[in-house]
Amino acid sequence: MSSVRVIPLGGVGEIGKNCTVIEQDDDIIVLDCGLSFPTEEMPGIDIVIPDFTYLLENKDRVRGIFITHAHEDHVGALPYLLKELNVPLYASEFTHALIRNKLDEKLDTKKLDLRTYKGGDILKAGSLSVEPIRITHSIPENYSLAVRTKHGIVLLTSDFKLDFTPVDGKQSNLNRFAEIGKEGVVLLLSDSTNVERPGWGPSEQSVKKELEAVLAAAEGRVLLTTFASNIHRMQQFFEAAADVGRKVAIVGRRMEQNVEICSQMKFIRIPKGTQIRLDEMKQYPDDKVAILTTGSQGEPMSALVQMSRGEYGRLQIRAGDTLIYSARPIPGNEGAIWRTINRLFRQGCKVMYGQNSNVHVSGHAYQEELKTMINLTQPYYLAPVHGEPRHQEIYLQMARAMGYPEHRLFELKDGDCLVLEETSAAIMGGIQVGRVLVDNSGRPGVPDEVLRDRRNLANDGVVSVTVVVDIEQGEIVGDTMISARGFHGPEGSLEKVTEVVDHALDALSREEVTDVSRVRHEVADSARRFIQHRYQLRPLVLVNIAEI
Amino acid sequence: MSSVRVIPLGGVGEIGKNCTVIEQDDDIIVLDCGLSFPTEEMPGIDIVIPDFTYLLENKDRVRGIFITHAHEDHVGALPYLLKELNVPLYASEFTHALIRNKLDEKLDTKKLDLRTYKGGDILKAGSLSVEPIRITHSIPENYSLAVRTKHGIVLLTSDFKLDFTPVDGKQSNLNRFAEIGKEGVVLLLSDSTNVERPGWGPSEQSVKKELEAVLAAAEGRVLLTTFASNIHRMQQFFEAAADVGRKVAIVGRRMEQNVEICSQMKFIRIPKGTQIRLDEMKQYPDDKVAILTTGSQGEPMSALVQMSRGEYGRLQIRAGDTLIYSARPIPGNEGAIWRTINRLFRQGCKVMYGQNSNVHVSGHAYQEELKTMINLTQPYYLAPVHGEPRHQEIYLQMARAMGYPEHRLFELKDGDCLVLEETSAAIMGGIQVGRVLVDNSGRPGVPDEVLRDRRNLANDGVVSVTVVVDIEQGEIVGDTMISARGFHGPEGSLEKVTEVVDHALDALSREEVTDVSRVRHEVADSARRFIQHRYQLRPLVLVNIAEI
Repeated sequence: MSSVRVIPLGGVGEIGKNCTVIEQDDDIIVLDCGLSFPTEEMPGIDIVIPDFTYLLENKDRVRGIFITHAHEDHVGALPYLLKELNVPLYASEFTHALIRNKLDEKLDTKKLDLRTYKGGDILKAGSLSVEPIRITHSIPENYSLAVRTKHGIVLLTSDFKLDFTPVDGKQSNLNRFAEIGKEGVVLLLSDSTNVERPGWGPSEQSVKKELEAVLAAAEGRVLLTTFASNIHRMQQFFEAAADVGRKVAIVGRRMEQNVEICSQMKFIRIPKGTQIRLDEMKQYPDDKVAILTTGSQGEPMSALVQMSRGEYGRLQIRAGDTLIYSARPIPGNEGAIWRTINRLFRQGCKVMYGQNSNVHVSGHAYQEELKTMINLTQPYYLAPVHGEPRHQEIYLQMARAMGYPEHRLFELKDGDCLVLEETSAAIMGGIQVGRVLVDNSGRPGVPDEVLRDRRNLANDGVVSVTVVVDIEQGEIVGDTMISARGFHGPEGSLEKVTEVVDHALDALSREEVTDVSRVRHEVADSARRFIQHRYQLRPLVLVNIAEI
Repeated sequence: MSSVRVIPLGGVGEIGKNCTVIEQDDDIIVLDCGLSFPTEEMPGIDIVIPDFTYLLENKDRVRGIFITHAHEDHVGALPYLLKELNVPLYASEFTHALIRNKLDEKLDTKKLDLRTYKGGDILKAGSLSVEPIRITHSIPENYSLAVRTKHGIVLLTSDFKLDFTPVDGKQSNLNRFAEIGKEGVVLLLSDSTNVERPGWGPSEQSVKKELEAVLAAAEGRVLLTTFASNIHRMQQFFEAAADVGRKVAIVGRRMEQNVEICSQMKFIRIPKGTQIRLDEMKQYPDDKVAILTTGSQGEPMSALVQMSRGEYGRLQIRAGDTLIYSARPIPGNEGAIWRTINRLFRQGCKVMYGQNSNVHVSGHAYQEELKTMINLTQPYYLAPVHGEPRHQEIYLQMARAMGYPEHRLFELKDGDCLVLEETSAAIMGGIQVGRVLVDNSGRPGVPDEVLRDRRNLANDGVVSVTVVVDIEQGEIVGDTMISARGFHGPEGSLEKVTEVVDHALDALSREEVTDVSRVRHEVADSARRFIQHRYQLRPLVLVNIAEI
């Protein structure tokens, strides 16, 4: 019998850009299609998406894309893949609604094949089938995906936590996980983000009490910032505000949009008369007002950051305001977030944040929850996903302690081919995958050498040297010109560089000067060496040779 | 009676570059002279130091610099200040020893006026005097500084924690704090870094048990990384290793130096026969070996980072090794640190880190310790230092809860002049202070516009356009040349820019072409607008006009 191949295009050995390919005979399916955010080593990059080359090379075999839930690291790369590969896109009704705006911005969605699923559906995809199973997370309508292959079920947990008092009352279908465990899970691809945390994570409900306490006690206005996709958190804020008699206004476009969509679809239920428009706020005293705002990641253009700078026209922070920071900093954003919080403090706004205030809980399973999933589904093979190497390693240590022998454990890297045979499994080679960098203009494919140049430019700037050559006569014409930006040499350093370049040019013979590349090399080399040696700086040296 | 002025040049509203000026009549003293590390918004910057303009403008009045302890954020800017202002430098013997190497690198230390103090000394400085009082921290020989002024004592706590079982057995002199409290503390400048943490911090001793457990249980080699200045941590590692029969080797130049200096001065006591050279390590089985290494901040050139890359010639990581990450990430270094830890995991090295392992404790006071200091010293005025605005605000909230009225509390910013009169105090104006950026070559004074250019270059690169002009004839000669680096336009975009520029130049009259600045403006403007409009990119556009 032929093999089944599982190939993560992203999302293993990292947190972000989740995208997993499952392949059986002539059929390929894609589970999730997310983005990740750039690190500090990627200046000028807006987002990072998986490398879809393998899928595009096997276009005709791709039967569909299946989405677990609507977080950016699971759906954010969809516009880029769908643009090249118009296959059926399966997602819950809620997820479709939430991602629609972003697809509309980049694609003609009328031409897409959008298909809605419900938990328990069996979605056929060639010889494979996919069954979504409800499981709780920090966003409504999250589903594990059970993929039936000829060698058993491959189960992708999706991001999850086991929350028995979810805000929307919709419980995880643990029963169904037990059933498919009986049926036979050959491979569990499990969330591992929170494997460092012992025990069982707190329910999303636990935040509500704290929100209520803050809303009741504060004498001024209370603002709350969270991810625009954190529908449950917003639901709880609306409820808590209503309970203590406060009205709620929303600032921030994406948040307004999401609340409107979710409200229409009844995924958020705003207590009657609680929501007001921002311009109605002045009709109420401060202690009767609450505000939901975007900006939890310190995004420069967000409402919160602009408020913290006193530059937001529609709303000014006042002494006596309280801000609830109800989110987790995405790594890399810490600096911007702390600067925002510090500015708010300076304006007299009290900010609640961090581990000493219970205004945020994680959406990911702690150790005992992860073990519960293993126990219920009884997978033969285990491969942690949604984790950096440290998370994967600690997850595997945990699995060993549960009795898993080494040959049933896999630490995958992006691009690895995990090949499942009837009675064995192994990582056999892999495909070429890399990160694809999308720049600020939205164009993917920024190459590594461009990034290298940018880091170089960022460190020491650019020095530009221009020389005019009469190529036929073999003569340098006029003066060497030099200019610099982002360069911090001592006073007079550019003049010295010019002298050094002139000296190098003088040493060239008439014949050598007829060779433009020779002149270019001489200018670049002499300038670069001198600057590095004399000033210990390494600017990018640009040489312009004008021929007349 | 005239006033006393307290002016922080750095270290308030931020964590780093601590430097406080105290001024009475004709006398100025400086307390600490530290550096801070650049944020992600300062590419190409090595360190940040205070702006010493005020001190240099008042050179003749400066009576001395007094150092609390040898951490970089308290001593790192000394070479830059001493270079311009050779006044007596007071520090403990230990601190002098630890900073000597760095001073030697930049200055002729023989010409400096280095003075050693002990706790309890009364150091005269014109009409002011300074009394160092021993207090515990994460480095040996840390002293609060009690400055006697005509309006009472100004007490700078220095960084501190109240550790009653310090590693070196040298207790804080709480009795003396009580006495000066009786004598009359007019102003307390208190550490506030850990004010967010309730209760009382754990003793440095608590780390030892954990180190011992890890060293005893590990079957392979055990490495520990920490700050090279964390002498007590190293002391404990040596002791714990000796207890379980392991030898200790050191990798990393700064750490080797510090251990040697401290060993000679008996500030570190290495159990006999415990320390070995790295090249002796192969004589011992893995479970008899331990290693101290630099690299706790993910510094690219450090031993640990190079080991994690498999690029360190003297030592290779092996499966079965354990690394104890016994430090705190300095904000901004998180990315580099996690990448290092992930690479170590991938090599089969187990890494212990973070809150679930008790291998690190903070050197800063928690809330109850901070309150103890207030209670003992009974200051009339309070001003938290060594904190971002959020720490300062929370400290002031804490003080209010202890009964301090508003007029006795100050939230200082760098450059504020806190003026103490006989019966009152107020922030009255301030001096111009900024951060001074020191670049990778060690030269201070990188201006803001250079940084702005660098950020711009980092985001979208540089496009360089060169035009040759016959100025007398008012003619453009030859072809417009274009090149780019770090720029990511679509294919053919540079050609399009050239066309646009040529079109703009064609439209110029002969007279206009005789005006170089007019030509320059036209080229820059047309190129910039087109690139921005067509490609949504904003590279730095460099224009070179060659005149013949």
